[in-house]
Amino acid sequence: MKRYEQNPIIQPSDVKPSREDFEVIGVFNAGVAKYNDKIILLLRVAEKPIDRKDGICRSVYYDVNAGEIKLLEFDQADKEIDLSDSRWIKTPSKNYITSISHFRLASSEDGLHFDIDEKPSMSASNLYEIYGIEDPRITLIDKEYYISYSAISDVGITECLAVTKDFNNFERLGVIFHPDNKDVEIFPEKIGGYYYALNRPSTSLFGKPDIWIAKSPDLMCWGDYRYLMGAREGSWDNGRIGGSAIPIRTEQGWLEIYHGATKEDVYCLGAVLLKIDEPYKVIARSTKPILKPEADYEKEGFFGGVVFSCGVILEDKLVRIYYGAADTCMCYAEASLEEIMDTLEDVD
Amino acid sequence: MKRYEQNPIIQPSDVKPSREDFEVIGVFNAGVAKYNDKIILLLRVAEKPIDRKDGICRSVYYDVNAGEIKLLEFDQADKEIDLSDSRWIKTPSKNYITSISHFRLASSEDGLHFDIDEKPSMSASNLYEIYGIEDPRITLIDKEYYISYSAISDVGITECLAVTKDFNNFERLGVIFHPDNKDVEIFPEKIGGYYYALNRPSTSLFGKPDIWIAKSPDLMCWGDYRYLMGAREGSWDNGRIGGSAIPIRTEQGWLEIYHGATKEDVYCLGAVLLKIDEPYKVIARSTKPILKPEADYEKEGFFGGVVFSCGVILEDKLVRIYYGAADTCMCYAEASLEEIMDTLEDVD
Repeated sequence: MKRYEQNPIIQPSDVKPSREDFEVIGVFNAGVAKYNDKIILLLRVAEKPIDRKDGICRSVYYDVNAGEIKLLEFDQADKEIDLSDSRWIKTPSKNYITSISHFRLASSEDGLHFDIDEKPSMSASNLYEIYGIEDPRITLIDKEYYISYSAISDVGITECLAVTKDFNNFERLGVIFHPDNKDVEIFPEKIGGYYYALNRPSTSLFGKPDIWIAKSPDLMCWGDYRYLMGAREGSWDNGRIGGSAIPIRTEQGWLEIYHGATKEDVYCLGAVLLKIDEPYKVIARSTKPILKPEADYEKEGFFGGVVFSCGVILEDKLVRIYYGAADTCMCYAEASLEEIMDTLEDVD
Repeated sequence: MKRYEQNPIIQPSDVKPSREDFEVIGVFNAGVAKYNDKIILLLRVAEKPIDRKDGICRSVYYDVNAGEIKLLEFDQADKEIDLSDSRWIKTPSKNYITSISHFRLASSEDGLHFDIDEKPSMSASNLYEIYGIEDPRITLIDKEYYISYSAISDVGITECLAVTKDFNNFERLGVIFHPDNKDVEIFPEKIGGYYYALNRPSTSLFGKPDIWIAKSPDLMCWGDYRYLMGAREGSWDNGRIGGSAIPIRTEQGWLEIYHGATKEDVYCLGAVLLKIDEPYKVIARSTKPILKPEADYEKEGFFGGVVFSCGVILEDKLVRIYYGAADTCMCYAEASLEEIMDTLEDVD
């Protein structure tokens, strides 16, 4: 895997905040698509209210009744409030988030230098999204781009679907996976009459965050869930796993670039090969990661030790990987399809 | 609500164990249907290995490779093992269950006196069911009886679907809701071209166990999830809620008998009325429970303080409620539709 020398390709300082009183603290985990001969990134942009050094800490949320983003203010001197984790304002009754994510469009001729829109393409706008929208994946089906994304709210983490033809108008289609679910990758074509999607339910009592697969007649309604694969003891993905990129059709099978974390929360990328006609069957899986946090921009940031992709482009046997580093910036790396296939080992 | 004087109608001692080395510890939470002029109960039967007083405690599970129920043995004297909760054998690495549930058929002419099959109708038989199957609900659609039920395993609590025409042959159709989900009630007819189902996801970080509704074109694939209703502070259902019976069509709306628990885990039954054409909209909800644990057989048992229904029958404006009491036995009560409607108060 060869990293681009000028990584990161997009940093928080490259992105204009959506409001004057906000600052961008992360631009990462972008959905990826080809549109009109350009590479499109649908960036996840995380923002927080600018610290005014006024002794007030601020939580941010979408107010469904008002139809806009609002702030909640807390006195930093309040001894009942715990501010030790910068992601949270923890009060005795509830934890409040300190940042919120939206989606922003970036486009590029060469896939390395991007023009970034000044305004959000999609931002929190209903009761499932009051704490923002995260980690989009883009699947092109019949000239329409379907975007699956995580919506965060008090009723849980759902996966929602939106669609666009032009990356200008985005239509929300609704919640497609009930809470909690994340990391949904819709396959780019029907298989045996059904669409398929990888997904990553979280469970409370039994179960771990592992990868499942479901099918759908219409992209909206999903079922026939099957457990696909789990974390592996003694491996680079022994903590938790989830799908990352939209699966790529290859001669050997569906190639899925997925993410795996160690129990210590080091997030790497690996690959798994699924049967073309039975994508719920695993053929082979990476015995070592194809990308792991090694560069400074991957090891340090809002959440250090993370490489996390939401999309790749296959061009002439070259896999072009766009990935978020340390939940802070967007980076680029590439590898030949062959190199990635070489990491795979057959699964019994 | 008028309880049957001879409650419980079915007790553990009425049910023949599925194996000679097992004892039945609970018969409860039965799915209910009318079939050939009889009332059918698809009983949840919980069994555990008989204690042989040999210093060994036994966990029970379905072995996928062997294709049968097996036992795991633990030394009761092992100081690393915690046996303080009779439902679990807790070891440092994992908790093991001590009982497992299957489904058993019971049928009755009068709905009060039941003939109980000697053998299970459905029992654990795949990797989603290794810790058993629980809490069936039966929906009659086009002369076929669809059974939604919880499947418990190491990969989480899923909701599965099976179908039967005759309560003799049962066909499994697969997993319809990913982990964790429970308490699925499929409406008995299409509404606006789609089937609908109540369901009760459990979430890990955000969210609480509340009732959602989803739609489906084919009963297998579900989507367009909407949050329907949650626990109510200061009410009898302030802890957790879930659907119970298959919704009943009435002139005023879909009447759903649901269960609600206090924060102290006292499980009661209440009612909610949903719009006929838009079942994702709540019209009215019980301000007080229609049934709460008061009788001895409801207050004491495997899990005391629980009344829990998986099905009712509407006959001439009489609602006949079959319910599990204290996770131990099956009971019966009835009320007029009017009495139940009288507990409802409009929701804004």
